[in-house]
Parts: sequence; structure tokens; C-alpha cells
Amino acid sequence: MRIVIALGGNALLKRGDPMTADIQRENIRSVAGHIAPLAHEHELIISHGNGPQVGLLALQAACYTRVEPYPLDVLDAQTEGMIGYMIEQELMNHLPHERPCATLLTMVEVDPRDPAFSNPAKFVGPVYGKEEMERISREKGWIFRMDGDSWRRVVPSPNPCRIVEIMPIRLLIEKGVTVICAGGGGIPVVRVPGTSQRFSGVEAVIDKDLASALLAREVNADLLVMATDVDGVYLDWKTPRARRIEHATPGSLRKIDFAPGSMGPKVEAACRFVEATGKRAAIGALEDIQELVSGDAGTQVTPGSSAGG
Amino acid sequence: MRIVIALGGNALLKRGDPMTADIQRENIRSVAGHIAPLAHEHELIISHGNGPQVGLLALQAACYTRVEPYPLDVLDAQTEGMIGYMIEQELMNHLPHERPCATLLTMVEVDPRDPAFSNPAKFVGPVYGKEEMERISREKGWIFRMDGDSWRRVVPSPNPCRIVEIMPIRLLIEKGVTVICAGGGGIPVVRVPGTSQRFSGVEAVIDKDLASALLAREVNADLLVMATDVDGVYLDWKTPRARRIEHATPGSLRKIDFAPGSMGPKVEAACRFVEATGKRAAIGALEDIQELVSGDAGTQVTPGSSAGG
Repeated sequence: MRIVIALGGNALLKRGDPMTADIQRENIRSVAGHIAPLAHEHELIISHGNGPQVGLLALQAACYTRVEPYPLDVLDAQTEGMIGYMIEQELMNHLPHERPCATLLTMVEVDPRDPAFSNPAKFVGPVYGKEEMERISREKGWIFRMDGDSWRRVVPSPNPCRIVEIMPIRLLIEKGVTVICAGGGGIPVVRVPGTSQRFSGVEAVIDKDLASALLAREVNADLLVMATDVDGVYLDWKTPRARRIEHATPGSLRKIDFAPGSMGPKVEAACRFVEATGKRAAIGALEDIQELVSGDAGTQVTPGSSAGG
Repeated sequence: MRIVIALGGNALLKRGDPMTADIQRENIRSVAGHIAPLAHEHELIISHGNGPQVGLLALQAACYTRVEPYPLDVLDAQTEGMIGYMIEQELMNHLPHERPCATLLTMVEVDPRDPAFSNPAKFVGPVYGKEEMERISREKGWIFRMDGDSWRRVVPSPNPCRIVEIMPIRLLIEKGVTVICAGGGGIPVVRVPGTSQRFSGVEAVIDKDLASALLAREVNADLLVMATDVDGVYLDWKTPRARRIEHATPGSLRKIDFAPGSMGPKVEAACRFVEATGKRAAIGALEDIQELVSGDAGTQVTPGSSAGG
């Protein structure tokens, strides 16, 4: 099978872990150990989150005041390099020589008319006190919202429309290369008005699961797996009645309300992929990845009997 | 022709320019404008320096003290993402749709027995006062040398031996993709002792021109061009007798002493490529790149008449 595996930020950096290079490296080594056996049988395309990492780079950049912090698209590109490097190296170290890996920088086109641009809602970077927030807001035009007791910058999270580097990604997959791409949901770019093929970066973040669903469609994947630190999608999560959904169709999932920031984007990504392709998607714990692939763990999403493939 | 173009740090960020994202972007846009016309006729593989950029990331990381600064291999990976993104986007914006681009993360194998490891000599990152230098030296084991009046960290600059991702790089070139790779000389990795194919990163930097010469050999390039902000290699540089070398053989160049940090590595890279392949190398100004390629500008290095190809 051709499988897109989307690695959640929490699969790469456990909640509460300090963000040192060593700890990230150790976690990624363990991730690679879980994934590598699949590469013997399947074609793998790996995507990954970058939330905590882009936050760290934004913090570091904000501390050094002699150069204006770089915009989000550039920070995204930095994390694609950094995380991609660690995943590629650790994965390669678990694979035989004849299964090469490659990490491709990935831009993802978004629509400048996407409603997200008029309603920035995704938190990024450090927290600020009120005064500092007001100063930065005046100076840079950044938009802030309360996150707990502090202020944080919010940016748009527009819908991914097209993977700019899809042609080289496909070429490599077809030659048996395990490809790491679309890290952090890809670098958000918009078409320059009045041109057909010129792009510029935008200050936004793209949801990594939605980008992975798009990637999975565009590489004709047979399966989209979203690996995180929870073993599936739950009904009545965090209540005594919590129970895992083992099998579902997009139709049944779309009737349920998932809290934003929880499983919502993963469920939406699974639904989009299954609806568009008639193939299967799975959401669950990284440790169960073999069983997620075989259909025996997590939440398995398949087309309804009436979907007709 | 198949051409490897190595973009010098000074071609991307002019000496004395502030390191803002906007200024880098503007310079890279101009670089792309010079290079793009070549992509219509030739297969291009682009590599680039990262000295100032890795220095900036090291400075930013040093300012935020709650997370230990990441090691050099990881910072290198960050710059491959960041600079690669800007080059790819600007180049793509100058090229027709049917000439796609791709940026590949690149590791370069070095030999742990390389003498550079016992004689670290390459400056990286910020300058320090004596007390701080001594404290960091105790805490982290970093090695420092005087750079002017201040102390700076020095790291080894070992010889590049092998490009880990050469197979996917070749695959993409053969399909007409303009490939950006080996940024910053590549991420230095060594083979884990006792294994044949496992790698780990090392705290070192690889000379970008030597890595580009290796890349040019490994992709069977017809030409290696090193583009910088000087219009060629000079004899008696910075004296009234200064004159550009227009044509040379590796044999004649190897008889001349070039000051370290000047044209030395470019000359060595040109000699290695020409000696190993019998093909041509050129060193000169980015603005002259058309003429560097046609053989009509810069310093052109060709095999001697006795080399026999």
C-alpha cells in the first residue's frame, strides 16, 4: 500500500517535555523505530507537525532584538529543515540501504480569500503582558487574543488548496524513496495577483492533518494514518462515559461536535480523504501504528456502504 | 549542460547588509533573476552558503536561555530549510510552470578521523568576552579562538566524503527538476562506528564549495560554477599589481598560495572537480553568470593539455 503517515506534534514531543534537541531526537528515534518496519512492505510518505518547534524559534528570534524576527513562513521553512532532518536521519538508521529517504521542502497554496484571513484564530509564539502586546500590536499590526491569563498572537489557519512540490514528491515515491514532506502543514503561500504561477509566503499556519489529507489525495495514497498520543477518537471524551469510536463513516463522524484543538482537525482530515477517494483513514496512537495500518486499532474511517467507493 | 551553481554567502547577503528577512529575500530575488535564464537551456543544481544565517540562528538561540541552544547540525538543517525556501520560491517565480524546482535536505558524510577534528579552525556564532568564553568552555567543552579583539567558537571543517541523498537528487535532475541541495555545505554526519549505514550529526561545518565540487562529481555535472561577489581569482589581490586569472589549470593554480578565508576553498574546489572529471569549473561574479557558463568571464579552470580528459 501507499500510506501517508501524519505524525502529530505530540508524537514527536510529549506533552510537558522540555524542548531540548536531545529529547526531540530521542522521541523521533522511538517514532522511527515504530514506523520503519512498515517501510519494508509499503510506500511511505511522512508528514509531521511543528507547533512547539515553531514556537521555540519565534521565542528565540524575539529575544535577539538586533534583527527583526523572521516571518512565519520563513520560520516554518526552518522547522521543515530541522524536524525533517531528525526524522530522515533516524528513519534511515532503521532502514536497509536500498530504501532511501528524502526530505522535501514543501509549500502549500492557500486562497487569499479564505475566511480564515479575516478571522485569525491560531495561537503562535510566546505569551505577552498587556502593555507589550499593545506596543507590538501598534508596531507590527499583529493580532492578539487571550490565552489563559496572557496575550498571544493569533494568525489565520487557511484551508490547504494545492501542494506546490507535488510533482517531485510523486517522482520520488514512484522510485521507492520514503519521502518526508509537508512538515508543519507546509509553508503557506498565495498566488501573486495577476500571475498564474508566482507565489509569495503569508503569515499563517496550515493545519498539518488537513495538509496531510490533501497530500494523501494528491499522491493517490491507499491509506491516511494520523498518529498521535491518544489511541483513537472518543465520544464523551474526559467524562466517565468516554468510549473510543472503533469504526466510523464520514457521515457518522460529521454529526458529532469535536472541541476545537482536540480531535476536530484529524476527524475532518479523515472525512475529507475518505470522501474524496473512497479509501480508508485511521486515527490513533503511534505505538499502535502496525495495527492502525492493518485496520485493527484506533478509529478506522471507511466510506459508508452507500458511498460506492 | 548539467551545471552545479554554488552560490556564495556574499552573493546572497552582501557584505555589511543587515540580516533581515526582507533584505535576504530581495538579494535572493536578484540572484534568481540572474540564474533563471540558464534553466531554460541547462539542467541546474543549486547549492548555497549559510555562514551569516547559521550565525544569526546561533545568536538567537543563545539569547533564549530556557532551552539549551541546538547543536550545529540541527542549525544547519534549519538554514537549509530557510534559505532553500527563499531560493526555491524566487527561482520558481522566474521559471515557467514546466520547469519545477525542489529543495532537498542534504546530509554529507565526513570521516571522523579527518585531521580537522583535532584542529577546529572555523569560526561560528557570536563573539564573547574572556570571562563568558571561559565559563562556556568549561560548561560545554567548546573551543574558542581570538577573532580580532574577541573570542569566538571554532569548529572543525572536515572534508566532505559522500552526499547521503545523492540517489533522490539524481532522480529529480534526470526528470528535469531544478534541484536546490547541499545548502551550507550539507549537514555534517559521521557513520556510527560498527555500522555500515547509520549516521549521526556532528558539530562541524563543511565548506560549501568543497561540498559543491563533490556534488558536481556525483551528479556527473559538465560544469561547476562558483558565484560570488568578486569577478574572479586574482594574483596579488589587494595590491597595485592585482590582476585576474582568466584561464588556469589545476596544476598552475595549485602552485599559488591563497590566503585562508579568501579564494582558497573555491580554487581547491575547482581543482578537485576538474582533476576528477576533466570537465570545466568557473569562479566569478554572480552578475556575470551567463558569461561564466559560456566560458567568457571570471576565472575558467580547465584540465591541462596533458590531462587528456
